[in-house]
Amino acid sequence: MTATRLTGSDGEPALAILGPQATALVKELDRIFTGWGLADGAEEISAPPLFPVTDLEKFDVYTNFPHLAWVAGSLELTDDRFKPVAGKFGPGAVTEARYGLPHATCYGAYLFHEGGQVADDSLVTLVNRCFRNEDHYSGLRRLASFQMREIVALGSFDHTQEVLARFTGRIQSFATALGIELGREAAGDPFFQNDSGRALMQKLSPVKYEFQYGDLAIASVNTHRNFFGERCSIRLESGEHAYTSCVAFGLERWLAVLTEHFDGDLGAALDAVRSAGLDPVHTAVPDAVRTAAEPS
Amino acid sequence: MTATRLTGSDGEPALAILGPQATALVKELDRIFTGWGLADGAEEISAPPLFPVTDLEKFDVYTNFPHLAWVAGSLELTDDRFKPVAGKFGPGAVTEARYGLPHATCYGAYLFHEGGQVADDSLVTLVNRCFRNEDHYSGLRRLASFQMREIVALGSFDHTQEVLARFTGRIQSFATALGIELGREAAGDPFFQNDSGRALMQKLSPVKYEFQYGDLAIASVNTHRNFFGERCSIRLESGEHAYTSCVAFGLERWLAVLTEHFDGDLGAALDAVRSAGLDPVHTAVPDAVRTAAEPS
Repeated sequence: MTATRLTGSDGEPALAILGPQATALVKELDRIFTGWGLADGAEEISAPPLFPVTDLEKFDVYTNFPHLAWVAGSLELTDDRFKPVAGKFGPGAVTEARYGLPHATCYGAYLFHEGGQVADDSLVTLVNRCFRNEDHYSGLRRLASFQMREIVALGSFDHTQEVLARFTGRIQSFATALGIELGREAAGDPFFQNDSGRALMQKLSPVKYEFQYGDLAIASVNTHRNFFGERCSIRLESGEHAYTSCVAFGLERWLAVLTEHFDGDLGAALDAVRSAGLDPVHTAVPDAVRTAAEPS
Repeated sequence: MTATRLTGSDGEPALAILGPQATALVKELDRIFTGWGLADGAEEISAPPLFPVTDLEKFDVYTNFPHLAWVAGSLELTDDRFKPVAGKFGPGAVTEARYGLPHATCYGAYLFHEGGQVADDSLVTLVNRCFRNEDHYSGLRRLASFQMREIVALGSFDHTQEVLARFTGRIQSFATALGIELGREAAGDPFFQNDSGRALMQKLSPVKYEFQYGDLAIASVNTHRNFFGERCSIRLESGEHAYTSCVAFGLERWLAVLTEHFDGDLGAALDAVRSAGLDPVHTAVPDAVRTAAEPS
């Protein structure tokens, strides 16, 4: 009873049921990433993997990422329509969809603080199941549902940038301790495709960096300026809208990379992760913090 | 930053974003329940909160619980239909739904072992986000999405009953240590509504007991006989289909009960839970194990 099982509609490798060794490895990775946040004073909250469409709409989700969206509805209970046909419910069988499945974890943090005030150096951590309607799936590398741990900074712009810089150093050091080579690539963030001012800002200064193993992004640091602060009316003591940033870890993708790097020996991978997580040199905060918005 | 935030379509209290204290309490409860399973030799696995309709259909989900079901689809990307209207996507906006959101955690355990062979005394534990389309919501007591920890026994019928008896004792002792009075009520299990032989068996001998605080069920023990073993072709060494049973803990409901019992003082609740979890008298396996199928 060790292997991960894949399942999916029409035989696609869209969903992974993780076996005991994979589960232990993902939990240990999550414990380490969470620990970095807690050490910086983060408070842990937990959000459900379902939100009202009205909440997700605040973040332009259906304008910027309609192709990725999964939405949830209940079944029309008349006329036997609630019985699936060939493993599917057609449009007439599903009543209106008033809920959406999130494709990122950090939404829960902004909704938690909606309408409130935060300190200039607020830090929150949370993990959630995320969902993406992809055009193809490839097991742990690209799933319809996966776990994403995030550390979310809310407060002054400087605070949001310092957090990203610290985590950039930690991610790179942790990868080094594991013997894994990670590229750091500037990436476009479609959040701002619909917002001309921010889209221009994104061209001038990248707002998203991905940490890639080959072509697979396994973590990212993201600058949102005051987009979420405005959309959720989160204010600083000064009265200004809060700035936010987040650090995201795709846990199943880390599992995919470690499985590959350790030739499928998940026991060896777990030992290495535990050692790397304890390593005071590699996981220390670098002396000279560079802002994440500057390419290294 | 302490309170739990509720959100939902049309203002319903359908979803809870748990604040730091509530998150810590839920994690501690889950650690204790998981620990009971691990102490009995359970292996932990993890399943996604989304399954193909074809997988959930194996368990008669859409025949027995169509009213509870949430199903997920992607958006029709033509003609601007992907834009929600009044916070909702109408039937034409959602393409066919090939995935379903589980309303219980244990499905992942059967799908993990599908087509395989298990030892006569197998034990698995997992937690998942579950989803229920309820006719009304009432915050932590009745949510559209909540966390359910399960300990799932697979093997001989005797093994499945011994596990339920042990957990029955533990749940009752743990509640006593917390100063909480829990009723133990026989309940009908709609799993077997569609299966005349099993429905008859259910009338003769209850297959589900709920542990209730007032009228709120916060844990249950469930006997499935060989229903899931047959539906997922899980076999014992003898060649017989595996018997299964499960113990389920509704984590947000425990949080609701403890919030009420400790008058909203979640710090006191956490201290009490930690003490009760350590208590060797109350959490020990009772000497005389009674099978869960006999009312106390």
